[in-house]
Amino acid sequence: MSKVTVDPGKLIRFSAKILQQVGVPEEDAERTARMLVAADLRGIDSHGVAHLGPLYIRCIQTGLINPKPQITMVGHAQATAVMDGDRGLGFVVGYHAMTEALKRAGQTGAGFVSVRNSTHCGAASTYAMMALPENMIGIALTTGGRAMVVPGSVGRGAGINVISVAVPTQGNAPFVLDMATTVVAGSKFEIVLRNGQATIPEGWAVDKTGKPLTDPKRYAKEGALPPLGGLPQTGAFKGFGLSVMVDILCSILAGSVSISELLTQPNTALRANHFFGALKIDGFMPADDFARALAGMVKVYHDLPKAPGVERIYLAGEVEHEIEKQRRHGIPLDPQVITSLQELAADLGVEYDL
Amino acid sequence: MSKVTVDPGKLIRFSAKILQQVGVPEEDAERTARMLVAADLRGIDSHGVAHLGPLYIRCIQTGLINPKPQITMVGHAQATAVMDGDRGLGFVVGYHAMTEALKRAGQTGAGFVSVRNSTHCGAASTYAMMALPENMIGIALTTGGRAMVVPGSVGRGAGINVISVAVPTQGNAPFVLDMATTVVAGSKFEIVLRNGQATIPEGWAVDKTGKPLTDPKRYAKEGALPPLGGLPQTGAFKGFGLSVMVDILCSILAGSVSISELLTQPNTALRANHFFGALKIDGFMPADDFARALAGMVKVYHDLPKAPGVERIYLAGEVEHEIEKQRRHGIPLDPQVITSLQELAADLGVEYDL
Repeated sequence: MSKVTVDPGKLIRFSAKILQQVGVPEEDAERTARMLVAADLRGIDSHGVAHLGPLYIRCIQTGLINPKPQITMVGHAQATAVMDGDRGLGFVVGYHAMTEALKRAGQTGAGFVSVRNSTHCGAASTYAMMALPENMIGIALTTGGRAMVVPGSVGRGAGINVISVAVPTQGNAPFVLDMATTVVAGSKFEIVLRNGQATIPEGWAVDKTGKPLTDPKRYAKEGALPPLGGLPQTGAFKGFGLSVMVDILCSILAGSVSISELLTQPNTALRANHFFGALKIDGFMPADDFARALAGMVKVYHDLPKAPGVERIYLAGEVEHEIEKQRRHGIPLDPQVITSLQELAADLGVEYDL
Repeated sequence: MSKVTVDPGKLIRFSAKILQQVGVPEEDAERTARMLVAADLRGIDSHGVAHLGPLYIRCIQTGLINPKPQITMVGHAQATAVMDGDRGLGFVVGYHAMTEALKRAGQTGAGFVSVRNSTHCGAASTYAMMALPENMIGIALTTGGRAMVVPGSVGRGAGINVISVAVPTQGNAPFVLDMATTVVAGSKFEIVLRNGQATIPEGWAVDKTGKPLTDPKRYAKEGALPPLGGLPQTGAFKGFGLSVMVDILCSILAGSVSISELLTQPNTALRANHFFGALKIDGFMPADDFARALAGMVKVYHDLPKAPGVERIYLAGEVEHEIEKQRRHGIPLDPQVITSLQELAADLGVEYDL
């Protein structure tokens, strides 16, 4: 079935109304809606409004997400702090924590906030990119679902933890890395299923015994995700190492427990810990000089010899930047996502006006 | 041929004498020797005294490394700074830069130093681990050789840039991630050749056209290293993205140019840029609580179900920690490395007493 194109502004207002209907305060609802749609705008369809009903609204309704959290700061130095998210929406908690990291970086040159008791915060790059208008480098790490198979183990053991780093440019696409520490993110399978794909590439998932799994339907039941690197001899311990690094900075440094432990406890669906950071560029060098040197770096990579059939080399964030330019005029949504939004509207008594 | 076991203390003193013979001041020579042997102690044979003659002494003799650098701080905020290493030995420059990052973290909770005009600094974990006795998390990034094949390109294009993060524990092995952003580090091939291995696993290297290369001798002539992730469909853009992230933080933020550009200029053998950082744990939470929670995390990962034939699951740094306990009593060196040290001693008029 063909996609349905919706207006981004309307989609934000609609999503905000839906969130308000389940008790999210107006300002938080609008902020969350804006951040959700920001993912759709950048082509990160796995982390946009497709998640609104099945993840966020459902978990607010079942009490797993607190729509009115009391976010508190529980410890800090001049450049660093810990926040307790009170099980609020990850978007709301993440916005406040990243804002705090940026404030501290504005004062000392660097700011870091580790966050416990939060929930799924969407695309990590949304937070890293908050640093860009302030001419800072943004860092956003978050724990993800417990679906990574650990080298030497079988089945799901570690978090699909995520690393995002955003670097400002002047005029060009910002450098925006946003990567799960697994070969692919778990939410990729939602898209594969939504598209009706019958198979996935070998290397994306393994079954309970560690054998490659290529049927996406089997993934939900018995699949686990290899760490970035794939097999031990091709660097799986690196992907696992990055996952544990994220777990330490997000969970342990914030006073929580390993996400690998937390997510085996009852009533923890969508729970997450985060780590946000910012580095002020002019704490290192003049921002204009940095921008000029960065543009030079981008050109060096773009000018590398192309493999046969390749027209352009892409740096992290460039594809998303191009998609965003197109989607500002309309976001194509999958018919299944449209249906879920219509059902949400009917359930919650909100007019469907997309 | 069998290995020759040497005493670590003697090896440090011998290496320091060698370095002094080519003009490195006594304190810098001892520090460099200690850091080189630290890599051998932890089993990182690719980054220890095997490099002393062929890399460092040779480049000092040919003028590519400055044995008496004037290291300067060229810009800074409270938590951040830029250093110019004046083409000094990476060990000397790195030691000073990491010390500065630790000092700043002691004051504000976080400290970061970006470093230009440095040279090959050995194992990145040596610097990240300098944070451990101060109860800080250490971060060390460095550019590496230009041998990564960029997705969409062919041949060598980007740096084998390296990420290391070290986290203190109380009593147990510290968490020490130390990884190239390629499937394997380039120096792995030195070990393969030293061991006389005829083939390498598929996935480690590709030839000029991008086809898999399994003959390690061909690597030196025409090989390139795939990014961590391997192929584009299994996450190569993530390994490449991490490499570019390291390039930005080490090179661009320090006022240098991309390592991909720098290493194509004349007389740049062994040149490198770095980025060092430290986060003070008690700027987030009491260090004892952190240590307890971290020990809990380690147990969770250790207790995961084992794959058939696997006795133990290892976290980053645990294997090296065990090797270090054994090697404190003697470091087994390859006969080829022994020969190179003997030749070095004869050339420079230093008594060979290992």
